Amino acid sequence: MAVNLNPPDPESLSPVEGVRLGYAEAGIRTSGRRDLMLMSLAPGSRVAGVFTENSFAAAPVQVCRQRLAVSDHIRALIVNAGNANCGAGKAGLAAARRTCDAVAKSLGCTASEVLPFSTGLILEHLPVERIEAALPHCVATLNVAHWADAAAAIMTTDTVPKAVSRTVALSGKRIAVTGMAKGVGMLAPNMATMLAFIATDAAVSGPVLRRMVREVADVSFNRVTVDGDTSTNDSFVLIATGASGAQEISSPADAGYGLLQGAIGEVAVLLAQAIVRDGEGATKFITVEVSGATAVDEAVAVARSVANSPLVKTAFFASDPNLGRLIMAVGNAGIPALDVSRVNIFLGNVKVIDAGGRAASYREEDGAREMKNAEITIRIDLGRGTAGTTMWTCDYSYDYVKINAEYRT
Amino acid sequence: MAVNLNPPDPESLSPVEGVRLGYAEAGIRTSGRRDLMLMSLAPGSRVAGVFTENSFAAAPVQVCRQRLAVSDHIRALIVNAGNANCGAGKAGLAAARRTCDAVAKSLGCTASEVLPFSTGLILEHLPVERIEAALPHCVATLNVAHWADAAAAIMTTDTVPKAVSRTVALSGKRIAVTGMAKGVGMLAPNMATMLAFIATDAAVSGPVLRRMVREVADVSFNRVTVDGDTSTNDSFVLIATGASGAQEISSPADAGYGLLQGAIGEVAVLLAQAIVRDGEGATKFITVEVSGATAVDEAVAVARSVANSPLVKTAFFASDPNLGRLIMAVGNAGIPALDVSRVNIFLGNVKVIDAGGRAASYREEDGAREMKNAEITIRIDLGRGTAGTTMWTCDYSYDYVKINAEYRT
Repeated sequence: MAVNLNPPDPESLSPVEGVRLGYAEAGIRTSGRRDLMLMSLAPGSRVAGVFTENSFAAAPVQVCRQRLAVSDHIRALIVNAGNANCGAGKAGLAAARRTCDAVAKSLGCTASEVLPFSTGLILEHLPVERIEAALPHCVATLNVAHWADAAAAIMTTDTVPKAVSRTVALSGKRIAVTGMAKGVGMLAPNMATMLAFIATDAAVSGPVLRRMVREVADVSFNRVTVDGDTSTNDSFVLIATGASGAQEISSPADAGYGLLQGAIGEVAVLLAQAIVRDGEGATKFITVEVSGATAVDEAVAVARSVANSPLVKTAFFASDPNLGRLIMAVGNAGIPALDVSRVNIFLGNVKVIDAGGRAASYREEDGAREMKNAEITIRIDLGRGTAGTTMWTCDYSYDYVKINAEYRT
Repeated sequence: MAVNLNPPDPESLSPVEGVRLGYAEAGIRTSGRRDLMLMSLAPGSRVAGVFTENSFAAAPVQVCRQRLAVSDHIRALIVNAGNANCGAGKAGLAAARRTCDAVAKSLGCTASEVLPFSTGLILEHLPVERIEAALPHCVATLNVAHWADAAAAIMTTDTVPKAVSRTVALSGKRIAVTGMAKGVGMLAPNMATMLAFIATDAAVSGPVLRRMVREVADVSFNRVTVDGDTSTNDSFVLIATGASGAQEISSPADAGYGLLQGAIGEVAVLLAQAIVRDGEGATKFITVEVSGATAVDEAVAVARSVANSPLVKTAFFASDPNLGRLIMAVGNAGIPALDVSRVNIFLGNVKVIDAGGRAASYREEDGAREMKNAEITIRIDLGRGTAGTTMWTCDYSYDYVKINAEYRT
């Protein structure tokens, strides 16, 4: 049961020139559902990515890193759901490469121009032969209009496909920015534990694309958390096909840089929020805004401590204004020499904590009213500087435990 | 439902000469249960403590710190359950001091010789008048044999009172070491989120007592975690009355130092484990052993990442050998340049991860068999050094969410 999240209307998703998407039922883990997605990119497309910081990076992540270190010219992405291809050692790397070989053969490019992605169970052998068998169906369904179908094919425990579009005008051309994401758990900042692919038909130089992917990740996917766990397979990939014919953006000073990054950032934030809204068992969408910090890192530490606290999250699930847990979580952020007498905390517009203690004006019925909402904002002013941040999270419900206890069964 | 944890047999708890314990129903939060405990100490008793690292340290913690910074000669501890006296600003400090004043008056000592402790809801006003009204009953029930009753009087959501004793012989005298603890959630290392009081009738100098309380905390209460949250009220206090008449231990080189610290450490570890066994909603008791680290801090970081991972904890609740989550959690510990190809992981005696990947010998039915046990050991060898540590945790069940969602209702 996602919080205020509907499946994307296929009509709302702008095709991106140079990007075609196909899908298939490969039966990787269960039969009867689409679990394989192929994204074919026009010649000249450039790709940049950011990947998990987990030491046990999955085999496909390792292959992506190796290939993108050599060249940003990529012709295809192949994504399977149901199996993470992680913890399989050399056999896992071989499986990821063999998958790419098959895609290259199907599309007539080289294997080094194909990036592999996997999501699902860790420690299981990837059944490459099933992927190979399903590839012809992926190729046969390749179409610029298949974003919604493709977004559905990469889901695991997601309950709703996640895809969104924006368009901007650059040097007189209409530019599309369309993205999809999957992920509902094993979610935490750095790097936000999911697969996300955003494509644009703008032309962007390699250095600018690599800068954009990091800057956008920092204010979107790295600012959401469901359970504090970071997956082994996190990948966020930004694709610029250049097929619109608009002039290439090759410097942050170029006209259009800000406009394009703004559109990509908006798509990324909406996808990141969609992941939280579809958080495993989520019943509330919670925005944590921290201000008055001495540095962004400090604000992030406080926001993360609050957003990841199981005690805070269960209180929100219960709509119980047990708001002492908020100061407990702020106090656990490890901020050196935090003067708690300067800390103020608001729930929506209700002041709960004034100068480090319970606000004299605070009445429990006001807190209870705010907590009944499906969308809740917690504002924390540390009162010691001018830096801030925003993070998004969800509550912890019975269903979080149920979903994760029974994931494989 | 605690995991293999029974209430202490009062007969098994050795009185500590110089320590008398009383209790009362003060009605601090609910009526009809004991919620106030008074510990009276003989003249000459010394006390040392370690307290929460949370920035929002509760008022009683602030008072304890101030008083112990001046003198380690303490005559009484007063402990209330049901109200944390935290987040109440100057009024909270005044309430803690007024409680001590009342105790001092009842026992004929000075207020600076009384330490206050509170556990329960944050952000609520402490009803000192109810404590004052109940104090005469505490004084009337003071008795050296009341350890089990006292342990019951400091419980909040604990389902089982926690108390344990050991005795050792020092310079021909029989020395008792008896302790009690409370705590089931808001639990994490540094400092393990609970109240614990351990008393001995050995004579120990102030410097040695302060050293012992830190060393013991580091291998007991700082090595347990239920949910990664650290409370605002954590306190572990070590009391030496000297009433046994044994020679004072004033240096780590003294005869008896190791023996006494061993007994205190054993009591502390059993109490710390009891807290995990009674962890909110716990159905499994999980020991995480990390070896092959380059430093203890590194081993602790890995153990903590595994012990705090909601995904690991829900998998253990389900007895589902979804053991990829173990490598995910190890990989999230932030160990620089971790060579995963040297990592081995065992579940009980079953090798699951060999050289960073799924062990060829591993069969799922072996993992499933181990996970069905109520007591489970995870052994992680990082293969890069000689340091290690042990941490204890429990699983996450539906009841963890239930208990914390409904704590106040």
